[in-house]
Parts: sequence; structure tokens; C-alpha cells
Amino acid sequence: MSYILYYSPGAASMAVHWMLLELGVPFETRLVDIDAGAQHAPEYLRLNPTGRVPTLVIDGTPRGESTALLMLLAERHPESGLAPLPNATERPEWFETMIYLANALLPAMRSWFYAATDGEPADATAIKEFARRQIEASMERLDKTLGDGRPYLVGDRLSTADFLALMLMRWTRNMPRPATSWPNLARYVERLRATPSFLELNKREGLTEWQNASP
Amino acid sequence: MSYILYYSPGAASMAVHWMLLELGVPFETRLVDIDAGAQHAPEYLRLNPTGRVPTLVIDGTPRGESTALLMLLAERHPESGLAPLPNATERPEWFETMIYLANALLPAMRSWFYAATDGEPADATAIKEFARRQIEASMERLDKTLGDGRPYLVGDRLSTADFLALMLMRWTRNMPRPATSWPNLARYVERLRATPSFLELNKREGLTEWQNASP
Repeated sequence: MSYILYYSPGAASMAVHWMLLELGVPFETRLVDIDAGAQHAPEYLRLNPTGRVPTLVIDGTPRGESTALLMLLAERHPESGLAPLPNATERPEWFETMIYLANALLPAMRSWFYAATDGEPADATAIKEFARRQIEASMERLDKTLGDGRPYLVGDRLSTADFLALMLMRWTRNMPRPATSWPNLARYVERLRATPSFLELNKREGLTEWQNASP
Repeated sequence: MSYILYYSPGAASMAVHWMLLELGVPFETRLVDIDAGAQHAPEYLRLNPTGRVPTLVIDGTPRGESTALLMLLAERHPESGLAPLPNATERPEWFETMIYLANALLPAMRSWFYAATDGEPADATAIKEFARRQIEASMERLDKTLGDGRPYLVGDRLSTADFLALMLMRWTRNMPRPATSWPNLARYVERLRATPSFLELNKREGLTEWQNASP
């Protein structure tokens, strides 16, 4: 099997990039220069008509939607344990958590960042305020979930839900209330940011913000 | 296995209700009277802290998120063929389509309906306008997808993607531009509304709008 990831540093491709590193499978990367508008270039739109990252070319066929790619990769690599197996007790919770992150948190983050470009600039303040409320309500809920001391979102081990959640939490870092201002989220983030694959991800994407303090 | 569906007529529970009927498995239903605020009652919030429908109690454990429930039910009933099996050619497209509907279309529909109650009433016009654009862009894309004459969204047979898509299209019926004003969506809707399980669903939920004209 072959994987080619089209990515932009820190964008929605980040969760998939992290997962590929954690899987330890061979893959290639192609940088999409979003600042230069490369996501709207005809050759990219042929791969991904939405003009967004990530695109993952799987055995020659381009696929999009970060959440879908995480779920698909978990299924293609069941030995990784990055999702509960079908019939595992945690399987329903995994589906529910993945979809919750995908349909409650991710779109609100998109509205926060793209209110002015996706909609009328004059309406951006209202739309961002609406998105901010949704994001903070989601963080509140995730903080409560992690309040029982669990180290990971689903079950007792790292899963695709953590890749997705951490990426979304990172996006709040310059918001009025960053995810790390919730105590259980702060603990969770600190722990996951220390994983070797996350450190490698930051190095490969050239990211320097939102790291744990050096010991 | 046992299923108890908490639903409200025409709400997000509709896709799951439809799937249970199509599966032909035994299940019970419990009506949640949304107009009377029953979704905020303590006994319901214990089952589903989001105060939304559906909740599906699976073998005694309550689960939420309509998209997740559709995916989970497909996995629990692989013989139904309501999702491509793992390793099937259509599997990546199925994941991508389910997630696209869940994170692009469904949240925008929620914003359209709940702008005033989830946010500041004064901002509702701006938020609804933003949501309307997103919804129409999604319909445009789905219309284009169906433009090749395919009878179903994924592969050549009915799948969970159709349950989700049809529910979302139904929700546009009183919007400025209903889904059925796109020619390929109109053809798709007309065909799916004629399936016996959809007719039975409407009967059970007491729905009379958005039906095919009698022959």
C-alpha cells in the first residue's frame, strides 16, 4: 500500500500526519502552500475539489476529510490498536467521540477562522462569537470527560480520537480561552505533547508553538 | 441484542429510525416530546447529556450522535449491506461521504434552525445567512456528485449515507432554496422517498409533509 499526504503545517492535515508517523508506515508528503493559495490551484483541485487539506492519496486514489482518513487508516492498520476493534467494548464510544469531534468542534473551529472569508465580512463578528460559544462548550464537555483521570479520550490507550482532539485543542491556542485553561485538558495536552510521534510531527512540519516547556 | 430508540418526529433521530426499519431488526421506541422540553428533563439528560435526539440504547448502554449510530449499526449488521464492507473498493468513499455530511452539512443545518436559541438572538440573521450559504454549497456539491446518474450516494446500493443525506435534504424543505430545487437531488429524493422503509418511517413518526405525490 502507498500513501502520499498533501499537507500544510498545523492545518487539518496535522492529525493524519501524526497518525502516519505513529503507525510507522512508509509515506510521502507534499507541502501545499496555503499562504500562496496553492490549495486553489487546478492541479490540487483535481485531487480535492474542496480546496482543503488534507488529501491522502491511497494506492493512487485521492481522499479527503481528516476524520474519515483517521478512521480509515485505523481500519487498514488494525494491528496498531489506534481504534478499538469491531466488537470491542469501547467501539461505540470511539464512533461517538470521533463524530462528536467532527461535527460539533471541527466546524465551529472552521467558522472561527474563516468567518470573514466564507461569509460576509460584516457578519464575521457575530459568526465568530457564535463559534466561540460552541467551541468553549465542547471544551467544557471534553474537560468533564477527562475529569475521571483517564489518560486518553477513548479506552485506556492512544487512539485516533486523541489525534483529532489534540489538533483541535492546538487551534484554540490564540483564542480568548485556550483549551489549556481547562485543568483536565491541560493535563491531557501536556501528556500527549510529550509523545515521540508528536515531537517528530512538530519537527517535520516546522512548528515551534504550543510545545511543552523544556524540563 | 436489544435496541431502544429515543426519537422525535422528523428530528435527527429520523435517519437512525429509518435504518432500524430497513434492517428489519426488533427495536423499541420512546417518544421525546421536544415541544414540551422533554429533551432537557433530568431523566433524559442522564441518557444523553447533550439533550438531543437520537439516543439509542444498545444492549443497555445509551449512545448518541446520529452519524455514529448509523456507522455502528452498519458494522453490527454487516449482512444488511448498508455500508461497504472493510476492504471493499467503496469503503474509503463511504467514510468520506459520511464525514462530509456530518461535518459540513449537519452542523450548518443546526445553525440554521438554532441560531437564535444557541446564540445571541440579535446575531441570528447573520448566522443563518452564513449557514444558508454553507448548506447551498453542500447541496450544489451533492447535486454534482449525483450528476453521473448514480441512484445512491455511495456505490450502487442503498447505504447509511442515503439515510443521512435524505434526512438533511428533508430539513431544507422550507428554506429559501430547498434541496429538491436541484435537478439531480430532486430525482434522488423522489426515488428514495418511494422505498417501503421510508414510507413506513413516515407513518410511524406521523409525518405527512415532504412525500411523493400520489400516482
